[in-house]
Amino acid sequence: MFGLIGKITAESGRRAELAAYLHDGSRDLPGCLSYVVALDSQDPDVIWVTEVWEDAEAHKASLRLPSVQKAITKGRPLIAGFETVATTDPLPGLR
Amino acid sequence: MFGLIGKITAESGRRAELAAYLHDGSRDLPGCLSYVVALDSQDPDVIWVTEVWEDAEAHKASLRLPSVQKAITKGRPLIAGFETVATTDPLPGLR
Repeated sequence: MFGLIGKITAESGRRAELAAYLHDGSRDLPGCLSYVVALDSQDPDVIWVTEVWEDAEAHKASLRLPSVQKAITKGRPLIAGFETVATTDPLPGLR
Repeated sequence: MFGLIGKITAESGRRAELAAYLHDGSRDLPGCLSYVVALDSQDPDVIWVTEVWEDAEAHKASLRLPSVQKAITKGRPLIAGFETVATTDPLPGLR
C-alpha cells in the first residue's frame, strides 16, 4: 500500500472553504482505502490530509480525475503552503 | 471527532516488531473510526500512526484497555522517540 501525510496551510481565514474543496474532491477515488481531511487543533490555518492507497499508481491516477482536478483548481488560490510530511507504507489491515 | 498524527521512532532495527505491536493493539477499540500504522518510506526507523476517534474521551479511554496496555508494555522498550505531530478535528464523512 501507499500512504501520504500532507500538511496544507490555507490563506488566512480560508481554511474551512479549502477543507471543504479537499473533502469534496476525495469522493469515490478508485484505489483509495482511506482519505482523512482534518483541521489542526492548534494552528487555525493548517489542514492535515492523511491518505492510504492500494498503491502509488492509484494515487497518481487520481490526480487526473475530473473531480480532483476541479477541487485542485478551486482550492489552489486558497493554499498558502503545502508540505508532504511523509510518504509511507501502511500496514495491511486498516482499522 | 478527534484526530491524532503521531511520529514514533523505533530503536534501530526494531521498527517492524514495534509496528506489529502497535497494529495488534489497535484492534476493536471502542469509538475508533480510523487507525493507520504506517512505515515511513524514507526513514527506516520511523512509524506514523494516524488516528480518528469519535471524540477525545474515546481515545483517552482506549489507553486503559488491557489490549492497549499490553501493546504499550511490549512496545515501550523499542521506542526511541515519540512526537505528537498534530491533534486534529477531522471533517465528518471519512473516505
